[in-house]
Amino acid sequence: MGQNLILNMNDHGFVVCAYNRTTSKVDHFLENEAKGTNIVGAHSVEELCAKLKRPRKVMLLVKAGDAVDNFIDQLLPFLEQGDIIIDGGNSHFPDSIRRTKDLADKGILFVGSGVSGGEEGARYGPSLMPGGNPAAWPAIKPIFQAIAAKAPDGAPCCDWVGETGAGHYVKMVHNGIEYGDMQLICEVYQILGEGLGLSHDEMADIFTEWNKGELDSYLIEITRDILKYKDTDGTPLVTKIRDTAGQKGTGKWTAIDSLDRGIPVTLIGEAVYSRCLSSLKDERVRASKILKGPTNSPKFTGDKKAFIAQLGQALYAAKIVSYAQGYMLMRQAAKDYGWNLNYAGIALMWRGGCIIRSAFLGKIRDAYTTNPELENLLFDPFFQEATAKAQDAWRTVVAQAVTVGIPTPAMSTALNFYDGLRHEMLPANLLQAQRDYFGAHTYELLSAPGKFVHTNWTGTGGNITATTYDA
Amino acid sequence: MGQNLILNMNDHGFVVCAYNRTTSKVDHFLENEAKGTNIVGAHSVEELCAKLKRPRKVMLLVKAGDAVDNFIDQLLPFLEQGDIIIDGGNSHFPDSIRRTKDLADKGILFVGSGVSGGEEGARYGPSLMPGGNPAAWPAIKPIFQAIAAKAPDGAPCCDWVGETGAGHYVKMVHNGIEYGDMQLICEVYQILGEGLGLSHDEMADIFTEWNKGELDSYLIEITRDILKYKDTDGTPLVTKIRDTAGQKGTGKWTAIDSLDRGIPVTLIGEAVYSRCLSSLKDERVRASKILKGPTNSPKFTGDKKAFIAQLGQALYAAKIVSYAQGYMLMRQAAKDYGWNLNYAGIALMWRGGCIIRSAFLGKIRDAYTTNPELENLLFDPFFQEATAKAQDAWRTVVAQAVTVGIPTPAMSTALNFYDGLRHEMLPANLLQAQRDYFGAHTYELLSAPGKFVHTNWTGTGGNITATTYDA
Repeated sequence: MGQNLILNMNDHGFVVCAYNRTTSKVDHFLENEAKGTNIVGAHSVEELCAKLKRPRKVMLLVKAGDAVDNFIDQLLPFLEQGDIIIDGGNSHFPDSIRRTKDLADKGILFVGSGVSGGEEGARYGPSLMPGGNPAAWPAIKPIFQAIAAKAPDGAPCCDWVGETGAGHYVKMVHNGIEYGDMQLICEVYQILGEGLGLSHDEMADIFTEWNKGELDSYLIEITRDILKYKDTDGTPLVTKIRDTAGQKGTGKWTAIDSLDRGIPVTLIGEAVYSRCLSSLKDERVRASKILKGPTNSPKFTGDKKAFIAQLGQALYAAKIVSYAQGYMLMRQAAKDYGWNLNYAGIALMWRGGCIIRSAFLGKIRDAYTTNPELENLLFDPFFQEATAKAQDAWRTVVAQAVTVGIPTPAMSTALNFYDGLRHEMLPANLLQAQRDYFGAHTYELLSAPGKFVHTNWTGTGGNITATTYDA
Repeated sequence: MGQNLILNMNDHGFVVCAYNRTTSKVDHFLENEAKGTNIVGAHSVEELCAKLKRPRKVMLLVKAGDAVDNFIDQLLPFLEQGDIIIDGGNSHFPDSIRRTKDLADKGILFVGSGVSGGEEGARYGPSLMPGGNPAAWPAIKPIFQAIAAKAPDGAPCCDWVGETGAGHYVKMVHNGIEYGDMQLICEVYQILGEGLGLSHDEMADIFTEWNKGELDSYLIEITRDILKYKDTDGTPLVTKIRDTAGQKGTGKWTAIDSLDRGIPVTLIGEAVYSRCLSSLKDERVRASKILKGPTNSPKFTGDKKAFIAQLGQALYAAKIVSYAQGYMLMRQAAKDYGWNLNYAGIALMWRGGCIIRSAFLGKIRDAYTTNPELENLLFDPFFQEATAKAQDAWRTVVAQAVTVGIPTPAMSTALNFYDGLRHEMLPANLLQAQRDYFGAHTYELLSAPGKFVHTNWTGTGGNITATTYDA
C-alpha cells in the first residue's frame, strides 16, 4: 500500500522519500519498483526528516493503534512548528481526535486520512478522506487531489472532510458500508446458486448485465470476474474457498458506534454478524446435520428470468437503505462532534477509487447537492421513487428466501428498517407499557410528549416510580 | 427498589439498616413502609457502618458508574478486613471486574450482583445473580437465597455465578434477552393488530391462551393485563402511549459486547436497533407520508385462527434462537475470562423472579443439566425438535409480514440466523475472494484450512499480499 502510494505520487511529479524500519525493504524498493524514478530513500527517521522540504509532510502507513503513536513519538524530535503528520492507516477516529489536539499543542498539524481502494487504488488513484487540522489542508491539497481517483466528470475523489477525527470517521462508515455491500452481494450469490441452481458462468452473465445499469459498481464488476475465474481443473476457484470471514476491523467499529449513538444502522450490523456466523464453520457443519430446513424442500418456483430481475431490484433497494443508514449515522456524529460535514462531497469522494465506488454514489451526491439539509436519503425524490418501484420485488425476494430457507440477513433487515421507518406507529407503545408495568419506569402519552406518567397496572404494585433501575 | 429489598429481607428475619444520603427519605421510610418492622435507619455512612454486625454486609443500590465508586470511597474508612460490599445496581461488568480486584487488595470482599424483577420482584422475591469475590458467598448466601424468588420446585433463583464480573455479565445478558423477548412480543402485537385487525380484547385472549402453553412466561402474562387495561374513556390505555423507547442501558452493552467478542447475537442487536428506530418518532411520522408500502395494500389472507397458531410457533422459535444466542455469548465470555459458569444454574436463576421468567427456562436448565458441555442450545434434542416443528409456521409468518409490510426485525433475524447456522456453506467464500481481489488479503481453501493463499485475479494487480490493511 505504501509503495503504491509513493509510486502514484511520483507519477504526478512529487519527489517522495521512502522509509521503512526494515531498511532492506527500502533498498529493495529503490532497486526494483522505484528504479528510474525520482523517489529517494531514508534509512532512519532522522534521515527521512532531514531530506524533507518544509513544512515537512510525513505520511504514515502503519498498523492502527500504538504503532501510530510510537511512530509519531519517533518523528517529533526531528520536526518543527508547522510540519504535518498524516496518518493514512485505518485508525479509529477517537484516536485521530486525540492526536489532532495533542499535536496541535506541540505546533504540529495532524491529518487523519482515510485511504480506500486497496493496492490498485493506491497505485492508480485511491479515494482519500482527509480530516484533522484544517491548517494542513492547503499544503497537502495539491498532492492529495493529484493522486486521488477521478470521478467520471474529472473531479478528484478527495476533499477536506472536517476537523479532528472526521476523516477517519467517514472512512470508518465507508468501510461499514463496504461490509454491507459485500454481504448483500453474497446473499444474492447464494440465492442464485443454491436457490435457482445457476452455474457460475450464468451468474457471471447476470453480474455483467447488472453492471450496465443502476447497480453499476466496482464490487459488482469484480464479482463478475471472480465468478468467471476458473481453477486449473476448470472449476470456479471461488467454490474451493473456505467460507469464513474475519470481522475485527472498521465494520465492527461502525456497528458499535451506531449502537452508541442510537442510530439504527441495521444492515451493517447484520453484515458484521454474518461474518461472525461464517467464522463458526465447525459449529455450522455440525448444525447442518442436526437442524431441519423447510419441510418438502421447496424450491424457487415461477419464471427464473423475472425472479432474477426482482433480485436485482431487491439488491438495489437494500443498498439504498444501507447508504441511508450510513448517512443517518454521519449526520448524528456531525451533530455530536460539531463537524460541518459536506455530505455531497463525501459521496463524491466515494464515487471513484473506493471499493464501494458506483454510479449510484453520483445520485447520492446529486441528492445532497440539491438539498444539503436532506433529513434522510430515502426522502430524496430519486431514492423515494427508486424504493417505491423496487419494493414489491424486494418483498417477493425476501419472502421467497425465507420460504426456501436461504439466509438473507442484510436484505431482510433493510426491508424491515424500511417498513419500520414508514410506520408512524410502531409497537414500542406496548414496550413502554411493559416497562412501566414491571419497573415503574413511566411512559409518555401520544397527546403529551415530554410528560412522563405512571400507571398502577395491577392495582397492587404501588405508585413509586423508578428512576435508577435501567432495563 | 432498595426499600422493597429491605422489606423483603425483614420478612425473612434479617435485621437491616437503611441509609440514603437524603436522610429525610430514611425517616419517611421508617415512619411508613417500615413501621412496626425490625428495620433500623442511619443518617450517615459512619452510623450505618457502626450499626452493622461483622463481617459487615453493605449492599449498594445506586446508579451504575461513578456513584458506585464514590459510595465505596465513602464506606472504606469505616470498614474492616473481611467486610463485604455488594453492588446490586446495573453496573457494567468491566467495572465489577476492576472493583473485585481493587477491593481485594484492600481486604474487602466485593460482590457485583445482578438483581432482576423490578419493584415487585424486589419486594416479594427477585432473581439474584451474584458474582465477584467467592470468599463473600458463604456470608451472603443465607440472605440471598432466602429473599430470592423460588422456582416452582422450590429452588431459590439465586446461586453463585462466578468470579469477578460474572454476576453482572450474566445480568447484562439477561437484560439483553429481556430486550429481545419484549421486542418479539411487540412484533406479534403489531401483526395481530395491524395485520389481522384484532381488537385489544381479542389479543388479550390470545395471550391468555399462550400463557397456558409453551410460551408461559411473565412477559406474556403482563402483556395480557396491559392489553386488557382500559383508560377511563374505555379505550385500551396502551393505544394512547407514545411509541418511543429508550435504549441506553444493558441491552446495548450486550449487543456491543457480542460484536466485540464476534458472536452473532443478532436478535438482541435488532431489538436494540428497534428501540433506536422507535425513538426517531418525528422522522417516522414524516416518512410515513412519503415512503410507499406494498402495492395494492395486501392483507393477511386465509384462516386467521390457523395463522394465530403459526404466530405463536414463530414467537416460540425466535425466542429459542434468542436464548441460544445469549448462551453462545456467555460461553465465549466464560472462555475469555476463565469463568466457570454454571449454565444450568443460570437458567434456574432466571426461572423465577426475573422479568424473563418462564416455563421455557426450565427446559434450558434441563438441557444444560443433561449436558453441561452442550455446544449450542439448538443442538439439545428438545430444542432441536421444537424448532423443527415450528419452522414452517415461522417461515409463513415472516414471509407474510414481509409481504404486507409489517416490520418483524427480531423474528426475521432469528430465522435468518437459524438458516445461516444450519448451512454448512455460507457465501463468505465469495466475500473472501472479493477481499483477496481488491486488497490482496489472501484466503483459505476448503481443502487446507489455516493456509492462506493469494490469487492474482486480474493478472495485473501484482503478487504482493497485504497484511496491515484491514477492510
